[in-house]
Amino acid sequence: MASNRFANTLEPPYFVVTFASQRLPGDEGYGEMAARMAELAAKQPGYLGVESARDGSGFGITNSFWADEESIRAWKRDVEHLMAQKLGRQQWYESYRVRIARVERAYGFDAQPNERT
Amino acid sequence: MASNRFANTLEPPYFVVTFASQRLPGDEGYGEMAARMAELAAKQPGYLGVESARDGSGFGITNSFWADEESIRAWKRDVEHLMAQKLGRQQWYESYRVRIARVERAYGFDAQPNERT
Repeated sequence: MASNRFANTLEPPYFVVTFASQRLPGDEGYGEMAARMAELAAKQPGYLGVESARDGSGFGITNSFWADEESIRAWKRDVEHLMAQKLGRQQWYESYRVRIARVERAYGFDAQPNERT
Repeated sequence: MASNRFANTLEPPYFVVTFASQRLPGDEGYGEMAARMAELAAKQPGYLGVESARDGSGFGITNSFWADEESIRAWKRDVEHLMAQKLGRQQWYESYRVRIARVERAYGFDAQPNERT
């Protein structure tokens, strides 16, 4: 029943990078680069998953999950990712905020169809 | 230049509650309740701000920011909020994931219009 939009993280502790951003109008290669970065990130050591949503106004949040802080630092320094970050500041984002946090507790809910009869 | 969709959090450490959810189709009073919960949360001790985005498929992420874990626990136990959580499981959400994390580092970017000339 659960959407595949959720990351299959295991028991805490692990780390989350919250990336909130306001996009500028126009694609300008953004979609292609975002797909490439998602693909590359998923291959990094310590990567646990990602959850992402962007609304019609271009405001979006991407939460990526990592086993440890060193994995996060290594991904930030990845050469292709550094290039994407630079293009992000030059042409894709009006503003963004990044927060690196240690997940201490987690829980969730998945409806069963027959719970709502 | 910065969108008012960003929370004006101060220097870490502080806490984030990431709430990722898949909505069921139809409003069923959700919009009104979400607005009421946002208003109530903002009055809680320790509340620092919120950032939220939901896409056209009904998948959304809300990150709320708090001064400490006790503030998070107190808000979770708020009577009106408990009622909203129950309705959420009964009629609004197919699935959700909640993660409580301690923000250790944060940074951001705001474009200056003349940076792109």
